[in-house]
Amino acid sequence: MAKIAVLGHGVVGSGVCEVIHENQESIIRRAGQPIEVKRILDLRDFDGLPYRDKFTKNFDDILNDDEISIVVEVMGGVSPAFEFSVASLKKGKSVVTSNKELVAAKGAQLLKIARENNCNYFFEASVGGGIPIIRPMHMCLAANEIDEIAGILNGTTNFILTKMIKEGTSFDEALKTAQDLGYAERNPAADVEGYDACRKICILASLAFGRHVYPEYVHTEGITKITLEDVAYAESWGGVIKLIGEAKRIPESERIECLVAPAFVNGESQLANIDDVFNGVLVRGNATGDVVFYGKGAGKLPTASAVVADVIHEAKVSGTSTSLTWKDSSENFVLPYDEVESAFYVRAAGFRDSSFAKERISVLFHGVSFLSRAGQPESEAAFVTESMSGGLLMKKVEALKEKGAEILSVIRVADC
Amino acid sequence: MAKIAVLGHGVVGSGVCEVIHENQESIIRRAGQPIEVKRILDLRDFDGLPYRDKFTKNFDDILNDDEISIVVEVMGGVSPAFEFSVASLKKGKSVVTSNKELVAAKGAQLLKIARENNCNYFFEASVGGGIPIIRPMHMCLAANEIDEIAGILNGTTNFILTKMIKEGTSFDEALKTAQDLGYAERNPAADVEGYDACRKICILASLAFGRHVYPEYVHTEGITKITLEDVAYAESWGGVIKLIGEAKRIPESERIECLVAPAFVNGESQLANIDDVFNGVLVRGNATGDVVFYGKGAGKLPTASAVVADVIHEAKVSGTSTSLTWKDSSENFVLPYDEVESAFYVRAAGFRDSSFAKERISVLFHGVSFLSRAGQPESEAAFVTESMSGGLLMKKVEALKEKGAEILSVIRVADC
Repeated sequence: MAKIAVLGHGVVGSGVCEVIHENQESIIRRAGQPIEVKRILDLRDFDGLPYRDKFTKNFDDILNDDEISIVVEVMGGVSPAFEFSVASLKKGKSVVTSNKELVAAKGAQLLKIARENNCNYFFEASVGGGIPIIRPMHMCLAANEIDEIAGILNGTTNFILTKMIKEGTSFDEALKTAQDLGYAERNPAADVEGYDACRKICILASLAFGRHVYPEYVHTEGITKITLEDVAYAESWGGVIKLIGEAKRIPESERIECLVAPAFVNGESQLANIDDVFNGVLVRGNATGDVVFYGKGAGKLPTASAVVADVIHEAKVSGTSTSLTWKDSSENFVLPYDEVESAFYVRAAGFRDSSFAKERISVLFHGVSFLSRAGQPESEAAFVTESMSGGLLMKKVEALKEKGAEILSVIRVADC
Repeated sequence: MAKIAVLGHGVVGSGVCEVIHENQESIIRRAGQPIEVKRILDLRDFDGLPYRDKFTKNFDDILNDDEISIVVEVMGGVSPAFEFSVASLKKGKSVVTSNKELVAAKGAQLLKIARENNCNYFFEASVGGGIPIIRPMHMCLAANEIDEIAGILNGTTNFILTKMIKEGTSFDEALKTAQDLGYAERNPAADVEGYDACRKICILASLAFGRHVYPEYVHTEGITKITLEDVAYAESWGGVIKLIGEAKRIPESERIECLVAPAFVNGESQLANIDDVFNGVLVRGNATGDVVFYGKGAGKLPTASAVVADVIHEAKVSGTSTSLTWKDSSENFVLPYDEVESAFYVRAAGFRDSSFAKERISVLFHGVSFLSRAGQPESEAAFVTESMSGGLLMKKVEALKEKGAEILSVIRVADC
């Protein structure tokens, strides 16, 4: 019998209790033993629940209970989740989490403490909800060098973009629908500004490249500035706009590219058809080639089932430290954003007429492809550049501005 | 140091040697120890190879070498691969394989022998080449009941169908191209008749439902009868024809549905856009919802890297039996094909004219949707039925025949 504690009885925490309760029989078969939720930490009262006697408001009741061998941390946030996780690991209790903010901020440190205490820190549910991705990536890694990861890592923004692309809904309206459906928080910043996707790409990049990638070094752009005009130009180019988190090995360098930004994605890409609240992660290995994992990236039961899968795994390997791991890295090894090369889509206005616009743009940018959309004013031009560094692009864009153009949008073109 | 033997130096076997040689450094980091190929079994001579001194033609050289703890069986075929695997497991040597024919025929037995001898039988590479699917499915399984699996499991047939759909190439021509490109064997039966896909869906179904599903009980249809006319009708219906392997839990029953057949796949399905030699597997869990794994399903390095990932896993867990497992099951629990329900596409000819055809068909089949294609003769009709058992469908089709119609095609409509 493995006894566990659940820290936080929110959406995921209550889902964990539900999954463990309802699938008890198959869990016994798979874990080789029953798994029991012994205590639940939450400051709120849950009087109506059949298991209300398991609740405590005092973490020490869990920490000092030697019967509890696994702590499920589904509180979210860095503090006190970090302190509770450290204390649990130091007592030899393995910790399973869905807390991407904490893993992205302190993963290397927590993994090290787990190893030192011969227990595990598992975080499958922190990326991709119910899609198995952390462990499969580790498997890919076993016999591959991973060259690149690119993913649609946030379901809320993908839902909003899908509404804009498929139904012509404006960003504001689409966000409101997402909020009404419960896909977006009332304060949607973590999603629409890209912070959530940033945490996830940091976790995947840390795993792929073996060193902790800190969110603060990762260029992060959200989707709030995306307009229906941009969506129309992307369509005429043969693709769609998606919020992409990307991490890439730079050949013959110790550094990596890592960023989160909206991007033009070619219609042929496996990521182009990942719509609504779904997530998809493309992993490019030197032996496997492209592998894509797809599914619902969030939600109570998918996320809870990923947590419970980690709990079952821990129950099977308990007493050995098998955590995936990466090194801490105090220096920043992420290439500065203005050195990252790619093609760019640029949309500008303020031109006398379209042939004038083309001339002016062609002088500054060589080899651009012009795009067009229905209802495009004569004064507006949109184009996709050749590949260049973000720094060079911005210089050229500045020059265009100096010539009187108004820059309406600049969006990367992804190569995934 | 883990010493291994490789049985069979064909495409996959030589790939395994290559991957282990080239990624030695990262393998040490991941396995915690070096991995060395000590012996290679092959009846052929490979004089030119730098590691020619490792070859032997006598399996006993491997079996009786106590230093060899892992045997990689990549010979293919049931015999002598089965005998060699049994002998290895009984000596406590774990076996890693890519041999889907053997796993589908004898998996339950080999898994049992592995468990009895406290070693492992791993077969990640047997399905989906380099796409991690066996272990992720096991993870899904940990906290989920799997309700359904549907997959494009054979790259050769998917390549042929893609050529037919995208370029209007006939089956024969597309097969020839596949052969010229090395995607199809000179004797293509295992691919185009669906046998290869059948072995793979049997392996996935065994894993998902916990009992061995034998290929001989699984209705298996290939793609040799698919015509460009069928492809055109599928397009007018809003989808594509794919060779689908499917396994499904039947609610409140001990039986499952399991079959391999070409199917109409809706354009909205995540499987519809999986083209060329790519494979994709959709796993529908009761908590995770739909999860899709996508990538190259075959090829030397992808498959070899999946084998090596298993070898590394074994090197880490050696001495404990952690194999995935399922029970043997002498009785057949696969629902007979004529009891499986679905909608069907039917194409028939020999009608006086189209309104006569519609009338005649509507009398026999209620609620059909008629399809049309460019160049459709007046004497031809194509339609999609409501959901019914295969047996009932065939009865109705027979009745249509008796009325003078010639039945040109019958293809299932998949619900994946």
